[in-house]
Amino acid sequence: MSQKITVVENILSANDQIAQKNRAAFDAAGVFVVNMMASPGAGKTTFILKTLEALQGRLRMGVIEGDLATSIDAEKALAAGIPAVQINTGGDCHLDAVMLAGAIPALPLDQLDLVIVENVGNLICPASFNLGTHMNLLIASIPEGDDKPYKYPTMYRGVQALIISKIDLLPYVPFDMDYFRQGVEMLNPGLVTFPVSARTGEGMQAWADWLVERVKAK
Amino acid sequence: MSQKITVVENILSANDQIAQKNRAAFDAAGVFVVNMMASPGAGKTTFILKTLEALQGRLRMGVIEGDLATSIDAEKALAAGIPAVQINTGGDCHLDAVMLAGAIPALPLDQLDLVIVENVGNLICPASFNLGTHMNLLIASIPEGDDKPYKYPTMYRGVQALIISKIDLLPYVPFDMDYFRQGVEMLNPGLVTFPVSARTGEGMQAWADWLVERVKAK
Repeated sequence: MSQKITVVENILSANDQIAQKNRAAFDAAGVFVVNMMASPGAGKTTFILKTLEALQGRLRMGVIEGDLATSIDAEKALAAGIPAVQINTGGDCHLDAVMLAGAIPALPLDQLDLVIVENVGNLICPASFNLGTHMNLLIASIPEGDDKPYKYPTMYRGVQALIISKIDLLPYVPFDMDYFRQGVEMLNPGLVTFPVSARTGEGMQAWADWLVERVKAK
Repeated sequence: MSQKITVVENILSANDQIAQKNRAAFDAAGVFVVNMMASPGAGKTTFILKTLEALQGRLRMGVIEGDLATSIDAEKALAAGIPAVQINTGGDCHLDAVMLAGAIPALPLDQLDLVIVENVGNLICPASFNLGTHMNLLIASIPEGDDKPYKYPTMYRGVQALIISKIDLLPYVPFDMDYFRQGVEMLNPGLVTFPVSARTGEGMQAWADWLVERVKAK
């Protein structure tokens, strides 16, 4: 006599299931959420604060800051007058959907249009974890060098927008913009790209205008 | 009747066991091995090539380059005329002792005094994996910002020397050297530190002289 065998297919990983719930919570509140990734020191926190300025009140913004151990970044955001939550990963090299789910209740989602999630500074680990956000954004800074798309292809493949930051440093470092852009185009054809300097303000308005359109089109 | 219970203590992890074998191989060949770690774009490969120049033949040097997928870095080293091996981690965010063990036979260890292992660009994962090398070296670049010791404490605690690179960019970026050094001192008191610019050559000779002494004192 043959026995019936039950086959359970794990269609979604545990992380992806929680990510789906995060997305549902964002959508219910009508908030657009960006997963911002970059190398350590690419200027993520400064870029968030300058984005806030460039938005000039057109979007109500909050932030979720991911870091190994400190709350330096969330304190900067709070000082700028926006709702901010810090996630400490306790050594993990990326945020995951469960960590984000834990942070969501601490933000007044109903009163926000946009939340930027600043992931842990790392070009490898964060690329593999879906958080339930609407857009993956990468910041590549000029002093990191023009070979980074070639060296971190998974990260460059998985984003929907790219910020090239610290362009005010172009005169002082070797950086072949054509070589950089060729790498990006190879990995992620047609990727929308914004060269900016948070320091001088160059390019910030074009980015902010695009972001407003993107959030409103949601 | 009581049963005797066998307790097996796992004193060394698999990685640490292999690391011990790597160390034995290095010591048998009389070669000093440095595990170099840094954020993506801190200038590791350029620093290695400039170190080679500053050594002016005082040490016979080889390199092992770690990266996710490419062989860009090993090609640069080979072009500079030194033995070089590339390890591709296939997406892993760090080298481990097994990967290094696989690369060792490809280098003429007996003909070398110094091997620099360039770890994957990452301030988190590589800190947790013993490779069997003699020294952990961290490169922190000025444009990454002065808060990195506070944000990546495990990395800063685990190194025996620190290079502060790209100091030629100090006039162009906000970087409070006192704040940076306070963080380093808190985590790793008395850490030997070399501020350098691979671009202008500043500080490279002091580093090379120290390295020669360190290798000879082994």
